[in-house]
Amino acid sequence: MLKIPDHQVAGHAAGIGKLGPLIDESGRFYKPLQSDKRGSEEVAFYESFSSNTNIPEHIRKFFPTYYGTKIMKASTGADHPHIVLQDLTSGSVNPSVMDIKIGSRTWAPEASEAYIAKCLKKDRETTSTSLGFRLSGLQVYIGDELGFYKPDRDYMRKISPDDVKLLLRNFVSSNPSTETETGQGPDCGLAHSVYGGPNGILAQLLELKKWFEDQTIYHFYACSLLFMFDKGLASDGAGSNVVVKLIDFAHVADGNGIIDHNFLGGLCSLIKFISDIPAETKDYTGTNGQAEL
Amino acid sequence: MLKIPDHQVAGHAAGIGKLGPLIDESGRFYKPLQSDKRGSEEVAFYESFSSNTNIPEHIRKFFPTYYGTKIMKASTGADHPHIVLQDLTSGSVNPSVMDIKIGSRTWAPEASEAYIAKCLKKDRETTSTSLGFRLSGLQVYIGDELGFYKPDRDYMRKISPDDVKLLLRNFVSSNPSTETETGQGPDCGLAHSVYGGPNGILAQLLELKKWFEDQTIYHFYACSLLFMFDKGLASDGAGSNVVVKLIDFAHVADGNGIIDHNFLGGLCSLIKFISDIPAETKDYTGTNGQAEL
Repeated sequence: MLKIPDHQVAGHAAGIGKLGPLIDESGRFYKPLQSDKRGSEEVAFYESFSSNTNIPEHIRKFFPTYYGTKIMKASTGADHPHIVLQDLTSGSVNPSVMDIKIGSRTWAPEASEAYIAKCLKKDRETTSTSLGFRLSGLQVYIGDELGFYKPDRDYMRKISPDDVKLLLRNFVSSNPSTETETGQGPDCGLAHSVYGGPNGILAQLLELKKWFEDQTIYHFYACSLLFMFDKGLASDGAGSNVVVKLIDFAHVADGNGIIDHNFLGGLCSLIKFISDIPAETKDYTGTNGQAEL
Repeated sequence: MLKIPDHQVAGHAAGIGKLGPLIDESGRFYKPLQSDKRGSEEVAFYESFSSNTNIPEHIRKFFPTYYGTKIMKASTGADHPHIVLQDLTSGSVNPSVMDIKIGSRTWAPEASEAYIAKCLKKDRETTSTSLGFRLSGLQVYIGDELGFYKPDRDYMRKISPDDVKLLLRNFVSSNPSTETETGQGPDCGLAHSVYGGPNGILAQLLELKKWFEDQTIYHFYACSLLFMFDKGLASDGAGSNVVVKLIDFAHVADGNGIIDHNFLGGLCSLIKFISDIPAETKDYTGTNGQAEL
């Protein structure tokens, strides 16, 4: 039984007559091939990546499992080709999710002039140029009563570097809010268990960074990092349910022997922003929390 | 007694009626303030940097010593304000020098539209966009008879990523050449003593990289790394005469709490290019050379 995913925070969403991703109960995610070259290029990337023996195993875990393509009834009702992937939120009841597009530049040097102009405009209007990344969307599970905190797309489109700082704190807080004037900031109660710790987001980003300092196979333009965790499990302090994945590969280019300095620069900027958070909030978990990072 | 420096490889050169830097016998370098805002902004940077107590001592050594400004007779014959700096080639007889402009983007987000358009065009025409850096100029001392290998500016303006690879090898070779069709590549005889070793260029770049992963004080747009060594001393294998400096600060912007991901990305790309060279050329110096890196 196919359905529209509950926890999508960015990208095209399925709706009545609208093409968008679907999931099934077996844990698979069906992404309709995008029009023009994007769909076929994303398939080409997954085919190349899944058969490339130069990708270390500890890096492969950052990518969704790829199950090939399938022509099937789309969310519009018509037959359409889909990329079949692992459903990353499968098994999670109330996942907190954040989607971050990495790189100060979302266009490849060989793209068309029209496409470059369009991307450059958006990169400059958002925080991509200034921060080296932009937050595309997020949802934070607060509790059964209040449900999810999920800023709308209009707000996300206009956020400043200071808003990014706040949202990165909201993501690990039990009182997320975009109101900064109340004097009551987000509590960052889960900063240590989600961002810190041996299996936390920071540790995983540093592993990824090390690979990006060396790999010259792919350049990941307009690709996103997805962070996910389940609050109930995170509160236990294990940190083991924190997931970091790379998604959206419609604009991957050949590395041609050059590292992806654009992705790497943005990743380092994000690492710096996140690493400041557990450091500031050591009081919340005391000595244990400090030792964890 | 002021004179025109012998070993400038990029930037405006002094000439008859032409404004350019001068040096004296006491080891000082006089850089005429550039027109428009650039001159005053470079002075502002040197003033800020020299009094900033948050710059670690081991990082300060990567910057030329600043001695203030002075109104003096310029290379044109007229009085003009100059920035007084340490002459980096003072004490070196036949320095090999390379100037590398770092960053895939040479413009700050807050620059004017006209300036951004001009820089973006040049960044895309050169290797800045693709590699994250571009070689602005170099000279390599071959010997008393042959003198210096110094590709002209027209050639430097049009070089490809493959040319960059070749020039980085030429820089540490006794047979530099831009002819790749002869089948006789550069010997990379000094790769281990200049690029490798505990005081070599790679070790120094890694030290700089570590600082750039953390510092959010300055963003260094259109700034260059200068590499210098004296062949006679480098052949002794000490590597201690290899100098790495940052120069050209007319476009430094406030970091505003954000790391300089643009500089850092380009620096990591350069590090990757250079680190491949001693690794490939281990045969030239044998076991000792390998151990050195």
